[in-house]
Amino acid sequence: MTDRKLNLTMLCDYYELTMGNGYFNHGMGDKITYFDVFYRQNPDNGGFAIAAGLEQAVEYIQDLHFDDEDIEYLRGRKMFSEEFLEYLRNFRFEGDIWAVPEGTPVFPREPLMVVRAPAIQAQLIETYVLLEINHQSLIATKANRICRAAEGRVVLEFGSRRAQGIDGAVTGARAAYIGGCAGTACALSDTRYGVPAGGTMAHSWVQMFDSEYEAFKAYCETYPTNATLLVDTYNSLKSGVPNAIRAFNEVLKPLGITKCGIRFDSGDMAYLTRKARAMLDEAGWPECRITVSNSLDERLITELLLQGAKIDSFGVGERLITAKSDPVFGGVYKLCAVENNEGEIIPKIKISENVGKITNPGFKKVYRFFDRENGMAEADYICMHDETVDDTKPLEICDPEARWKRKTMDNFKAQELLVPIFEKGKLVYELPTLDDIRRRCAYEVSTLWPEVKRFDFPHQYYVDLSERLMALKDDMLKAKR
Amino acid sequence: MTDRKLNLTMLCDYYELTMGNGYFNHGMGDKITYFDVFYRQNPDNGGFAIAAGLEQAVEYIQDLHFDDEDIEYLRGRKMFSEEFLEYLRNFRFEGDIWAVPEGTPVFPREPLMVVRAPAIQAQLIETYVLLEINHQSLIATKANRICRAAEGRVVLEFGSRRAQGIDGAVTGARAAYIGGCAGTACALSDTRYGVPAGGTMAHSWVQMFDSEYEAFKAYCETYPTNATLLVDTYNSLKSGVPNAIRAFNEVLKPLGITKCGIRFDSGDMAYLTRKARAMLDEAGWPECRITVSNSLDERLITELLLQGAKIDSFGVGERLITAKSDPVFGGVYKLCAVENNEGEIIPKIKISENVGKITNPGFKKVYRFFDRENGMAEADYICMHDETVDDTKPLEICDPEARWKRKTMDNFKAQELLVPIFEKGKLVYELPTLDDIRRRCAYEVSTLWPEVKRFDFPHQYYVDLSERLMALKDDMLKAKR
Repeated sequence: MTDRKLNLTMLCDYYELTMGNGYFNHGMGDKITYFDVFYRQNPDNGGFAIAAGLEQAVEYIQDLHFDDEDIEYLRGRKMFSEEFLEYLRNFRFEGDIWAVPEGTPVFPREPLMVVRAPAIQAQLIETYVLLEINHQSLIATKANRICRAAEGRVVLEFGSRRAQGIDGAVTGARAAYIGGCAGTACALSDTRYGVPAGGTMAHSWVQMFDSEYEAFKAYCETYPTNATLLVDTYNSLKSGVPNAIRAFNEVLKPLGITKCGIRFDSGDMAYLTRKARAMLDEAGWPECRITVSNSLDERLITELLLQGAKIDSFGVGERLITAKSDPVFGGVYKLCAVENNEGEIIPKIKISENVGKITNPGFKKVYRFFDRENGMAEADYICMHDETVDDTKPLEICDPEARWKRKTMDNFKAQELLVPIFEKGKLVYELPTLDDIRRRCAYEVSTLWPEVKRFDFPHQYYVDLSERLMALKDDMLKAKR
Repeated sequence: MTDRKLNLTMLCDYYELTMGNGYFNHGMGDKITYFDVFYRQNPDNGGFAIAAGLEQAVEYIQDLHFDDEDIEYLRGRKMFSEEFLEYLRNFRFEGDIWAVPEGTPVFPREPLMVVRAPAIQAQLIETYVLLEINHQSLIATKANRICRAAEGRVVLEFGSRRAQGIDGAVTGARAAYIGGCAGTACALSDTRYGVPAGGTMAHSWVQMFDSEYEAFKAYCETYPTNATLLVDTYNSLKSGVPNAIRAFNEVLKPLGITKCGIRFDSGDMAYLTRKARAMLDEAGWPECRITVSNSLDERLITELLLQGAKIDSFGVGERLITAKSDPVFGGVYKLCAVENNEGEIIPKIKISENVGKITNPGFKKVYRFFDRENGMAEADYICMHDETVDDTKPLEICDPEARWKRKTMDNFKAQELLVPIFEKGKLVYELPTLDDIRRRCAYEVSTLWPEVKRFDFPHQYYVDLSERLMALKDDMLKAKR
């Protein structure tokens, strides 16, 4: 049940197929191409994003093949040559891929992935690779914002019912876990990916019994060590909390259990939780945890905590699972070079009237520079693939969009961001466990300065180009393509 | 390949399982419950929504079963009794479901679906049913808005790469088609659901050749009857359109082909399309269609058309496939009644400090009243399930939130909105084809007055309660549960 048997090869934009057939017919199908995956803007005007979705992209690429039904469908469209369809029948991915490990903070305009492959193959994986990286990076980034707002309190992902489709919920919960959530309500995310799933009751449980008290008592009897009671079905402070305390006293106390919980799903969370905390403490239930779960996101959580709300954990639904305030992660997949018949790499550029849409040409790699004294990330540095940074010597870097801004890096450690994933179609990357990815995310985010992590007007982290890359780009722009 | 083999039973909130086990242990598992699916607010402050997602919800319910791995997982959680796990092993859905057919315009607070089933079963399907209805209704509603803005021009769904997960793209394209899109870029939506897929080229095609002209010529040679050329890789008006005309002249003209197309993916669409239209007409290509595809939604399309843009078709990506401006459809699943041991239906209500969150109690149905003269939809009417509207006599209806607003319906046709889907677990509904659903949507939307369809401050369509339902609700509110 937990393995995925669907062939998703056809989850591509149709133009990948028309272009593939076109390249094939023009003898260009095996021309080696280089594509960069990058994005242009951080979600919610934040200071960075969290890369995620690589594992699912890898699975897709490994499984890539056209079934007989796919070939039949394409034949029926009467646009594709028989030779091309025959090629697709034996199709598999044979290229090289480098990518940023999942959980890594990333910045606009730097490659998160570089694909080097024969044209048809590189083109075909475009749609799905973008889909997974865009979706999961979006949710991991949002989850990370929400978890940072919660300042160490538990954040649970509760949004399946409002997710945009099955994987919106299931891989969405995976991405939320990477970003820092402690768990999910979605049981399938647990069986499939190992995201810890949990949950206790809905309003319907309370309504099913003759009284709220009976509903609470029944729940405590069945789950004495996991009794989080939903207290807002009728009247939170007048009936919900008192009935919860009564059920705790009558069922849990005799068992010597001191850990329990209540949850509010409506009403003013600052007022209700302060009142409830006092009632619970006074009744001898200081270890009773208070969970809230109504239209939360990083903004409301920040405000609630500023107002002294007494909250131990947050259940965050639709605003996390759809990244409601900014629900699109705009990753793109752009041709940056091709090889000529002699195997020489010819850089390519896409020009746009919009300066931000001009691409960085050539086969590239990315370094992150850490301060050797305090371990903090200071700048990212995009250079040509055959350049090497010697971090034993000072290095002057400069902002590509404001050339007068120069900074000399000194006493720094240079670390490559992109690691090999596929070599000649073979997976050479050991996929980390989900918990390792989550830990990586927490650690790497801790290397960012607070200024970069601010929600409003964060400091713009340096993403600079090497002198060689900058000169190449300038030359190509001057040549006007 | 096109059939779905994944068992999605575990795509439920974990609390459905803890509640299920709790009901089971308290001998309430087979208690007959009634749940309504409804929503509270139209997306984008519009006047209505389009119901969609029923087919996938039906497939889920038909396939509902727990595999050995699921049972093992649940046993490992050490919260569920062996008797309950044994019950799950033989679990299937045995209830009744009524629902609004896909493609129907619907309004806040009226049931889109009514579930009558033993408690555990009714509870278990909550998450997935909401997920599908919420997701697809969201996208169908957004697509319908965008298609209405396009005023009969072709709208194509182009957003797979920015979708929130696999089904965000694939069932998202299905929903977009229901709402009125003519097709999609997503090939898998075609093989799986029959949404017509199409597409021609990306910028990479143009960059792969030594010149833009050669790229266009090669494309026209391979696809002479389907040549839509992307003209904005270098300079739209200075090189893109002239090179396209040259390729049309050299390749298509000798073949007697007059139909072709160009696409703009950046730049000012009003200016560029007017200029391009003139260039194409002057060059003898009046049948060349102009497609645009950059950050479009119903607002920008409306403005572009007001400004005299010359556009034949719109490719709409991220703002459609994520419903970016309002990416959550807030459908809920609320207990409205239970049966006691004598089979008597006991209505249930959920009270909230927020008046809009108070539920309508009881087992209900919904009528839509059409004017017999002009066929237009005039009001929806929620009543108890055993009430019958006699549409040969006048009927006074009243707004439940503004009781003084009364209106007498006369010369009207009453049509029930909810149709039987499952009876005792058996599917009794013949699922319509996707094209039938799409036609239904177009027709039913045509029965709405323009006032209801306005984007800004639309007229609020009447959704009234029967006298009996209103009295029941009042009594229950007075009794304070």
